[in-house]
Amino acid sequence: MPSDLETSIENMIMVFHRYAEEDGDKNTLTKKELKKLLEMELSSFLKSQKDTETVNKIMKDLDSNKDGKVDFEEFVPLVVGLSIACEQMYKFHKQKPTKK
Amino acid sequence: MPSDLETSIENMIMVFHRYAEEDGDKNTLTKKELKKLLEMELSSFLKSQKDTETVNKIMKDLDSNKDGKVDFEEFVPLVVGLSIACEQMYKFHKQKPTKK
Repeated sequence: MPSDLETSIENMIMVFHRYAEEDGDKNTLTKKELKKLLEMELSSFLKSQKDTETVNKIMKDLDSNKDGKVDFEEFVPLVVGLSIACEQMYKFHKQKPTKK
Repeated sequence: MPSDLETSIENMIMVFHRYAEEDGDKNTLTKKELKKLLEMELSSFLKSQKDTETVNKIMKDLDSNKDGKVDFEEFVPLVVGLSIACEQMYKFHKQKPTKK
């Protein structure tokens, strides 16, 4: 039985490949595939950005070798950034005194 | 309903805090807590290392500010490294011709 952390890692890989395999190169995300991943998997994050250029900016940030595609190694920093932001929120809420 | 990727991120945070909260500072892993996390959550990885110094080496690598503890931001690179290695294996096995 995989552990929670192993399952978390496996899910991250499965999600990436679920969208990467839609068209063209099965191991990379096109901008269209990245857009769909963001809309389906990170909809609340995407809506919170209120910037129509968000997908373009994320694509530009992630595509470090500028080949117009995002491979898994280029995708992971997005997950890292979101995880760190979410963990900060978790700690903030944990420290807040619970209302009596 | 959180998406698969959101659940994956949430689980990563929950796992970290499950072990970080065992003693002392609730938001960081001591070496003892990191050892337990590795043994419980990444046992196959740990066993594959065959080096009794593995936990010490991982602790040294992760503890970038050298305060003797690992916070979440210092912990994430371990998950990143493992995810990238696992995704390489996933691609390798995906490309292997299936035996007739």
